[in-house]
Amino acid sequence: MTHLSQQRCTACHADAERPAAQELATWLAELPQWQVIQEQGIPQLEQTYRFPDFLTALAFTQAVGQAAEATGHHPCLITEWGQVTVRWWTHAIRGLHRNDFIMAAQTDELYHRDFGSAVPSSSPQG
Amino acid sequence: MTHLSQQRCTACHADAERPAAQELATWLAELPQWQVIQEQGIPQLEQTYRFPDFLTALAFTQAVGQAAEATGHHPCLITEWGQVTVRWWTHAIRGLHRNDFIMAAQTDELYHRDFGSAVPSSSPQG
Repeated sequence: MTHLSQQRCTACHADAERPAAQELATWLAELPQWQVIQEQGIPQLEQTYRFPDFLTALAFTQAVGQAAEATGHHPCLITEWGQVTVRWWTHAIRGLHRNDFIMAAQTDELYHRDFGSAVPSSSPQG
Repeated sequence: MTHLSQQRCTACHADAERPAAQELATWLAELPQWQVIQEQGIPQLEQTYRFPDFLTALAFTQAVGQAAEATGHHPCLITEWGQVTVRWWTHAIRGLHRNDFIMAAQTDELYHRDFGSAVPSSSPQG
């Protein structure tokens, strides 16, 4: 099986078939750092990445945002001092689609490739 | 009185005196677009700005982040398709300081100066 991060997003419309629970479980097992949360009744994939300062966090937001725009699938990016929380879900089906797991896997790759050497700090600033 | 947006942030430490309720009310009256919300028991100033697409929202996040870094006072920036929610508070006092109102006013100025011509759309994408 091709790893999620090597797969491509497909177009997704409101009438697209929702993934079966077994599919979701299989994909989630490939992404142990990601959690499924509920936001206003909508399941979303969420992970918080740590950074040594604000500017590195901001650069990660920019990089994930550019990758998202290139794919045409857009996350919620919560940028704070020393951390960025990324949430993926599919607006069209108000839930999780295979595309979200693909983008989550690619977000992990981007982090480890370009930001993996950043040492997190535990002292946020005002 | 000098408008908030023309004032400068001052250094703020954990033992800094918290603003009086009357001061907070006066500053908030200057910022009618901002709301005080509670996040994990911490009062924060919040406003959501609208944009015509994802990339413009991302550019606003970048601009606010750069301004924040230059001042040494950092917000939470929630970037989504067509909108950015900005939250200001002061970690050192776990609440609102005059600095937050100054930064909120300057965020408004940045938006109107550099992004004010962007026409919001009502059709978010996946």
